Amino acid sequence: MNVTKTIQFAAACYSMIFLLACAPDEPKSISEEPRSADTLTFKRYGSVIKVKPEKLAEYKELHADPWPGVLAQITKSNIRNYSIYYKDGYLFSYFEYTGNDFEADMAEMAQDSVTQAWWKLTDPCQEPLSTRTDGEWWASMEEVFHHD
Amino acid sequence: MNVTKTIQFAAACYSMIFLLACAPDEPKSISEEPRSADTLTFKRYGSVIKVKPEKLAEYKELHADPWPGVLAQITKSNIRNYSIYYKDGYLFSYFEYTGNDFEADMAEMAQDSVTQAWWKLTDPCQEPLSTRTDGEWWASMEEVFHHD
Repeated sequence: MNVTKTIQFAAACYSMIFLLACAPDEPKSISEEPRSADTLTFKRYGSVIKVKPEKLAEYKELHADPWPGVLAQITKSNIRNYSIYYKDGYLFSYFEYTGNDFEADMAEMAQDSVTQAWWKLTDPCQEPLSTRTDGEWWASMEEVFHHD
Repeated sequence: MNVTKTIQFAAACYSMIFLLACAPDEPKSISEEPRSADTLTFKRYGSVIKVKPEKLAEYKELHADPWPGVLAQITKSNIRNYSIYYKDGYLFSYFEYTGNDFEADMAEMAQDSVTQAWWKLTDPCQEPLSTRTDGEWWASMEEVFHHD
């Protein structure tokens, strides 16, 4: 091996190291990728219900320190950015659903024993609107405007 | 320069190229960084107002195709993720404020001529709650629960 070939060999080795070190991460295999956009949804929900005046303090106290298991189930059920507001006897809720089967996630939440125990305390505080849709507790509202 | 030194020199050169090529971007100077967190705020607002039954259709029609200038001013005023819902004569609004001076941003919005023209159409559709705070049009609601 003469000097020129030795230098060429060293250069080739370093080029290889350079290429390997700088190469971007390989894309993940299909099985590791998140589910495709067409199976995931994002939907905003606005709902309303009345709160009994004599139960307002209790309702607020419960929600000021909600049970960790209830919060965990909310997250597990793909609900995000969930707020409840109060004014003049009405409770308004806003949340964003990020899963791919709202009905199934809500059915699972309704089977959770901690959530059931929580609802045994919160349901008696509330008075559902008579105009709610069949099967609703909180009445769904109509979105008339949205701007990101 | 003997063979060993030649190889060492070539190695040093490639190491330099390798280090320069793989070095991460330099951090931006302080002046290019976003404003620090203590001058920016993030606050959610829930508000409620009534809509006159005879004006509901007009209100919904306006909000189904809002004026670009109105939307631009909303964005300029640091309001994000803004929704309005309707149920049983009530409108409920939810938005997130991301600026650093809510009062100033709202005052600027109120000075915008396009927004003023828009409000000349939407205000007559609404009936503010008698229990709203002085100076309010939409009545602010109390946040009793939030979960991210």
